[in-house]
Amino acid sequence: MLLALAGGVGGAKLAHGLSRVLRAEDLAIVVNVGDDFEHLGLYVSPDIDTVVYTLAGIANPDSGWGVAGETWSFMDALATLGGETWFRLGDRDLATHIERTRRLAAGTPLSDVTRHLARRLGVAPAVVPASDDPIRTFVATDEGEMEFQHYFVRRHCAPRVSRLSYRHAAAARPAMVGGQRWTAMEVTGVIICPSNPYLSIAPILAMPEARAWLERRRFPVAAVSPIVAGRALKGPAAKIMAELGEEPSAVTVARFYAGLVDLFIVDTNDGALAGEIRALGMEPVVLDSVMNSLDDRQRLAREICALPVFAESRL
Amino acid sequence: MLLALAGGVGGAKLAHGLSRVLRAEDLAIVVNVGDDFEHLGLYVSPDIDTVVYTLAGIANPDSGWGVAGETWSFMDALATLGGETWFRLGDRDLATHIERTRRLAAGTPLSDVTRHLARRLGVAPAVVPASDDPIRTFVATDEGEMEFQHYFVRRHCAPRVSRLSYRHAAAARPAMVGGQRWTAMEVTGVIICPSNPYLSIAPILAMPEARAWLERRRFPVAAVSPIVAGRALKGPAAKIMAELGEEPSAVTVARFYAGLVDLFIVDTNDGALAGEIRALGMEPVVLDSVMNSLDDRQRLAREICALPVFAESRL
Repeated sequence: MLLALAGGVGGAKLAHGLSRVLRAEDLAIVVNVGDDFEHLGLYVSPDIDTVVYTLAGIANPDSGWGVAGETWSFMDALATLGGETWFRLGDRDLATHIERTRRLAAGTPLSDVTRHLARRLGVAPAVVPASDDPIRTFVATDEGEMEFQHYFVRRHCAPRVSRLSYRHAAAARPAMVGGQRWTAMEVTGVIICPSNPYLSIAPILAMPEARAWLERRRFPVAAVSPIVAGRALKGPAAKIMAELGEEPSAVTVARFYAGLVDLFIVDTNDGALAGEIRALGMEPVVLDSVMNSLDDRQRLAREICALPVFAESRL
Repeated sequence: MLLALAGGVGGAKLAHGLSRVLRAEDLAIVVNVGDDFEHLGLYVSPDIDTVVYTLAGIANPDSGWGVAGETWSFMDALATLGGETWFRLGDRDLATHIERTRRLAAGTPLSDVTRHLARRLGVAPAVVPASDDPIRTFVATDEGEMEFQHYFVRRHCAPRVSRLSYRHAAAARPAMVGGQRWTAMEVTGVIICPSNPYLSIAPILAMPEARAWLERRRFPVAAVSPIVAGRALKGPAAKIMAELGEEPSAVTVARFYAGLVDLFIVDTNDGALAGEIRALGMEPVVLDSVMNSLDDRQRLAREICALPVFAESRL
């Protein structure tokens, strides 16, 4: 069993590739919940939805969120009624939020709700929220501290970030999957997907049990850099790095994971960074890591699974 | 100021006519809330929405509920997710329920929420929920007692009705409009629209203050029969009458309103019932009361407003 840690778009792409090269029972994808929030009275889980829609093959390929062939009657009508429209919820997507919210309100944990919704959409591998407890990413900026979605969507990442915090993470526990916490699952390896380390992976590792699970690992861990040639493939990772006083570079990501990761995968563009990565105590692996097509996703997943440390997880 | 009491489709038609022949400030429409219910975590007010959509000119002319040009992406997606689909919520309509629910959850009374939504849709006269307190119509049937929408929509009025009850009505109070309860408004007359007396008007009059307001009236009250030639123009009124042991007839409706109504308006088809209606202590008025077109709505409204007792409300 391989376990992948993922956030939104980039993480979902590699998770999708993994889901096509591994048997469903050999893969579990643990997804960030730090971006979750309540909006219009609905519980919205952006990263879970991106992962589920992507693995279901219904993700909108252009936007990086929502479903393909979406319609927008609800948002149009909501605008007429003077409702809040800065966070766009498509008509189809809305069914996910309403059904999730209804089930949560009935007392079902997020992990069970997620399993139900993923199964209904035909997603075979386990998609596991990092926690059934709330973890909320807050962004301290030059315009004050704000909830993640207000920074990310409402303000389009414009404010200058000075600090990130993961509220309630210290008290949150890893979600249950098949009767045990995901940190207790027997895994042959862990892959940290090319997601934003600060926004997607840090909220997961901010849970004490999750961090200890990686620190005391008896399994190999590989991380894939979301920064290629000093630029983020998607999202504000590079901008935030610079604002936090770090150089936007795969090495900065590697330093973030030092002590938790054994192999660090960089793109062929960043092969020259191998020495710096090795100096951080990680084995550098150079692969073609930019995923522009479904073929790219499968190829990268296959190459990662073929690494000697993961060989026993191969098909 | 004329005050109209209304339920769904039939009531909305006459209210629409009245809204086109009276100045906005000369009309208030008090709408049944006994059909309201919580569905998918949303607060749904079917009669209020039918009245508002009808007066806004956006009602679906075929279904009797919802909006014209509706799309159904949400319901399709909800079905895929295994959600409850027996009560159909269109994508545009959903904006009303989500915005209403959000505002109610923030502590805004239903009357204020309704005023806001109606204004956004361009509805000028006051549309007032009968109460800001819950009133819930329950239907005792040969299949047990059920919430109104479960009887009406889920079971398509198939169960045999033995009794209707209006839960919480004894404790409910008339909603506020402009700083006073609607029963305290200075009115020159009241029109009970051609709505189902048991399902649409009775829940309103089940509030002690509303019933006393009609009993002690110092203004003329006219009711329009929703039964024409022994048949309900829309909905289960005639079927329920028969099941309750009453003859489906305008006279049965008149008997229901005895003591509360001064003029009883029947269709030209029912002119022969004038004597029976007079025997119940009401002045019978025979008008062409079937509204098949917008012209019909306006004509009937104009004829009612032109009745001598209402003459001072005329344009």
